[in-house]
Amino acid sequence: MLVLAVDPGLTRCGLGAVEGAPGTPLRVVDVGVLRTPPDAEIGVRLLEIERGIGEWLDRLAPDAVAVERVFSQHNVRTVMGTAQAAAMAIACAARRGIPLALHTPSEVKAAVTGDGRAGKEQVAAMVTRVLRLSSPPKPADTTDALALAICHLWRGSALDRLASAVAQERARAAAAHRASPRIRP
Amino acid sequence: MLVLAVDPGLTRCGLGAVEGAPGTPLRVVDVGVLRTPPDAEIGVRLLEIERGIGEWLDRLAPDAVAVERVFSQHNVRTVMGTAQAAAMAIACAARRGIPLALHTPSEVKAAVTGDGRAGKEQVAAMVTRVLRLSSPPKPADTTDALALAICHLWRGSALDRLASAVAQERARAAAAHRASPRIRP
Repeated sequence: MLVLAVDPGLTRCGLGAVEGAPGTPLRVVDVGVLRTPPDAEIGVRLLEIERGIGEWLDRLAPDAVAVERVFSQHNVRTVMGTAQAAAMAIACAARRGIPLALHTPSEVKAAVTGDGRAGKEQVAAMVTRVLRLSSPPKPADTTDALALAICHLWRGSALDRLASAVAQERARAAAAHRASPRIRP
Repeated sequence: MLVLAVDPGLTRCGLGAVEGAPGTPLRVVDVGVLRTPPDAEIGVRLLEIERGIGEWLDRLAPDAVAVERVFSQHNVRTVMGTAQAAAMAIACAARRGIPLALHTPSEVKAAVTGDGRAGKEQVAAMVTRVLRLSSPPKPADTTDALALAICHLWRGSALDRLASAVAQERARAAAAHRASPRIRP
């Protein structure tokens, strides 16, 4: 399973592609930051973000795209731009039929550190450890995207394991039911 | 000058195309509302909005696109969707090289009614009068888009008149300067 995680932003958009499967170590496939000039027109910036993310999607063909869910508790001036950059990432994924997941910042922190209110340094330390990097992610702008990718793979696989456990249990119950009715009608 | 105004929203996106020039009456060319189902995936909704607005742009070929500038003072739950729908409109215009303008709700109210804090009914009454409609715009969802279009045409033409007055004044000064230097070097 390869996930491309996007930490959306107009000025800086962090990207992290991580590969992994339940029970196996996670591996960084690529990291990067898309930048657009703050003095450019908003339309030009949005198309540039769309082009950049589209290129990553076409090059890596991920199985899923994870985007940080934007909240308006953030800085009011930047939150609109963040929501609009996120929209371009979401549309890029939808256009290619790639499944999308949105995770909140506190879900990401909780998944990676166990604490939904963990600080930046704690998140960076855990990302470094989980991905077995020799030093914290560079550029630092990519840390949140990598944390988001880890969150997606771990949450996704936890949900998958739960779903397959439920399916197995149902199959077992159904088999027991099919085996028994003739004995006790 | 034909302007397509977009009152962005995920569930309802109001569209109003208005034609006009300085000193001439304004004329409604088309109005409509794009709707996307609230229970659909966000990516599907954004692509649907993009497709719908793109179709209007290709059919009407407006000279400008005006989009209501989103503020986060609005309802926190809907403002992210509004910003994302606006992003699709902005990207649609940029992709076609159509000039974009953003106007705030209070700029629109001030342009149309003279009062930046005018109520909905006052705006609807003025839109009806300015566009010489026999009754308030239907669907009512299109009122804000039509007000935005009026705002854009009036503000734009006011700025154009100002710019052309400045240009005329400069030309007159330059002509006077060219006529005089040989007399007083």
